[in-house]
Amino acid sequence: MTGVPQAGWGPDRPIGVAVLGMGNVGTEVVRILRDHADDLRARVGAPVVLRGVAVRSISDRGIPAELLTTDPDALVARDDVDVVVEVIGGIDPPRRLILAALNAGKSVVTANKALLADYTGELAAAAERSRADLYFEAAVAGAIPVVRPLIQSLAGDRVNRVVGIVNGTTNFILSAMDETGADYSATLAEATRLGYAEADPTADVEGYDAAAKAAILATLAFHTRVTAADVYREGIAKITAEDLETASAVNCTVKLLAICERVPEAPGEPAPADGGKERVSVRVYPALIPRKHPLATVSGAFNAVVVEAEAAGRLMFYGQGAGGAPTASAVLGDLVMAARNKFYGGRAPGESVYAELPIAPIGDTPTRYHVNLQVEDRPGVLQKVAGEFAAHGVSISTVRQGGHGELARLVVVTHHALESALADTVAALAEMDSVTSVTSVLRLEGTEE
Amino acid sequence: MTGVPQAGWGPDRPIGVAVLGMGNVGTEVVRILRDHADDLRARVGAPVVLRGVAVRSISDRGIPAELLTTDPDALVARDDVDVVVEVIGGIDPPRRLILAALNAGKSVVTANKALLADYTGELAAAAERSRADLYFEAAVAGAIPVVRPLIQSLAGDRVNRVVGIVNGTTNFILSAMDETGADYSATLAEATRLGYAEADPTADVEGYDAAAKAAILATLAFHTRVTAADVYREGIAKITAEDLETASAVNCTVKLLAICERVPEAPGEPAPADGGKERVSVRVYPALIPRKHPLATVSGAFNAVVVEAEAAGRLMFYGQGAGGAPTASAVLGDLVMAARNKFYGGRAPGESVYAELPIAPIGDTPTRYHVNLQVEDRPGVLQKVAGEFAAHGVSISTVRQGGHGELARLVVVTHHALESALADTVAALAEMDSVTSVTSVLRLEGTEE
Repeated sequence: MTGVPQAGWGPDRPIGVAVLGMGNVGTEVVRILRDHADDLRARVGAPVVLRGVAVRSISDRGIPAELLTTDPDALVARDDVDVVVEVIGGIDPPRRLILAALNAGKSVVTANKALLADYTGELAAAAERSRADLYFEAAVAGAIPVVRPLIQSLAGDRVNRVVGIVNGTTNFILSAMDETGADYSATLAEATRLGYAEADPTADVEGYDAAAKAAILATLAFHTRVTAADVYREGIAKITAEDLETASAVNCTVKLLAICERVPEAPGEPAPADGGKERVSVRVYPALIPRKHPLATVSGAFNAVVVEAEAAGRLMFYGQGAGGAPTASAVLGDLVMAARNKFYGGRAPGESVYAELPIAPIGDTPTRYHVNLQVEDRPGVLQKVAGEFAAHGVSISTVRQGGHGELARLVVVTHHALESALADTVAALAEMDSVTSVTSVLRLEGTEE
Repeated sequence: MTGVPQAGWGPDRPIGVAVLGMGNVGTEVVRILRDHADDLRARVGAPVVLRGVAVRSISDRGIPAELLTTDPDALVARDDVDVVVEVIGGIDPPRRLILAALNAGKSVVTANKALLADYTGELAAAAERSRADLYFEAAVAGAIPVVRPLIQSLAGDRVNRVVGIVNGTTNFILSAMDETGADYSATLAEATRLGYAEADPTADVEGYDAAAKAAILATLAFHTRVTAADVYREGIAKITAEDLETASAVNCTVKLLAICERVPEAPGEPAPADGGKERVSVRVYPALIPRKHPLATVSGAFNAVVVEAEAAGRLMFYGQGAGGAPTASAVLGDLVMAARNKFYGGRAPGESVYAELPIAPIGDTPTRYHVNLQVEDRPGVLQKVAGEFAAHGVSISTVRQGGHGELARLVVVTHHALESALADTVAALAEMDSVTSVTSVLRLEGTEE
């Protein structure tokens, strides 16, 4: 990439890089910085030089010992550091270190979704004040370019919905449950053994990781500040082997979805596209999706994000959403851009939250339910159950009856209705004498209706 | 997107836009500029104002008549035009108009793949001299962000291969032939009737359009100037209903692929990844791909691009590759970025062709062949045919025998071998007494071997 450097910069003045953290991602970032130094120099216009790596404790990491430090603050503050790469994770110390870097006019590249989900506003304001860059492609879906397309490629379009599989651990577990028929705890144990789940899997299986990414995606898609607290969240720990079996019976599978979409301002109002006002619904939960849906074929630890925009139509981005090398690829792309901006005087696009759309509570969000009931096997039960749905204004799409003997099984799939009405219906069903148990309730996504 | 504007710019100084051409894409660009003026202003920081639209002849286009002009040069030269959107297509007058704009320091957004494939160097140099932006996301795969991910997101990675379905017309035809069993000419006629093929379909069906896009993709992926003349090209006009049937029999389909990849410097040398030197192979041809390959499911007028990079692994981008609205989405994204750069003083990344890798001739490219032969049905023929492959150093993967009576059919699938050896083998087979005819020769792509 050719061009005329800014005053003070030139091919002999290196761009100094500090890497904070040397886990899976940091190790790969350091490896690429060293192995591909020639390519990086050619792409930036000046050498990209690793000044130091902040680690928790000094040990042999396969790089010269003098590059390692346990003092990240001092590393960030060095005069010869121009760009700071933060791959530690968590809120602190990354928040302090990133703010220090930005306040000093240094550009920052981070993969830290948890931090961004809650503190993007603060970080973006610091970057703005000192005209520094804040890049974070790696924070969502690893190597898959989705942050940059949302910020830049779709900058002139109107995004209506983003639906993604953005957590590899849960997708690995759900894919395996679908394939093997095994139950959740056995599959989680296997995922842990294979390294797909961490020793404490809470952040993944309870949906916190996906919710942080959903908050980032929604912020970008709708030009509206969305934080993790705005995201309705359910994890996959309650998904059973029977849920997968039930899903299969209706040609569906179960995926943990991050869903960001525009919804009408008030229940019953016309959709935003038809002139209604609008709010933003952001939610993470396991849901049935038809096997023919593009996201249904995303298996194992892969990620995919579907973006629906007014002019662009439906776009899909697919690839490796986690892991050291894929995440490092996204970090390095941002790093080259940040370094080029230093050199040539460009700027990353700043934060865009001008739309300030309100967040719709989960109850006001239109969804579909797939309800599994055990009922007494006698005449009139179906009618009573159907009556309960009707009483709450919920329209039924299909009912299947199964089972035999004293108990029968009813599987009810609804049309779109408000979450609150659906939840009230299920609560009422559980109280009915002729309903022995509500075996499972799953949402159904990805249908045209 | 917030920030401090450059000197001379502010929220009251509009960004003036000239649109050259008002076909499908231009009409949608103009519509979005007018319908979404508020969003565009908020995203840029200043109003984005349409100064005029250059058309071939004045007629009612649903916009104020004073915006229309038949003098594109005068429109480009206007003092109040800051960004020029070129959606005319073809080499001239777009080349002259874009150069005039860039030379005057105006930023340019273009969807013109034919022009870029041959003149990117000239255009990029002009942009560089006047520090103007040249954006062209819409030139490849319509709304699908693939140009920007290659330039920016993968800027720190090493791309090894790009394989794409980048022409909607041919994909529509091949998908329909696969589904219906109809032959090429009937399917082309139907595609023309439905508006998926132009009256003169040459640019699409002969692969020129895909070759131009392949040249652009290869330039970006390998940091090497690749022009349309460097691209080996075969179209789909010779594909028969029997080819699709044969493909189906081995669980494959036929797609027109644009393939850009690194290949060893000389035949027989180690692959670049193993320390060999490297060249770039860029080619467009119809090929068999396994039905389970991600590109096999891309049907109708959709496009998809698979990028394989060292750290990122395999990424896939999918969406609508053509049409007024999807292409306009890509144009508008670029337009917002160009306008923001004017306002805040940023710059689009310039051209990066430092690697200057040589282009490998098609003969030196390793591929696999799927050869369909009619042979005399007598003992020893298979042995003779196999001997011909061996004599040219081509290793056979599978042979299937079919047919009966005096003639038998042989379907031979090879392992990877050099194109030149494969072509020589086929030429020799055609000369054999016991081979009645070489019914078809298709390449096989997308296999792991």
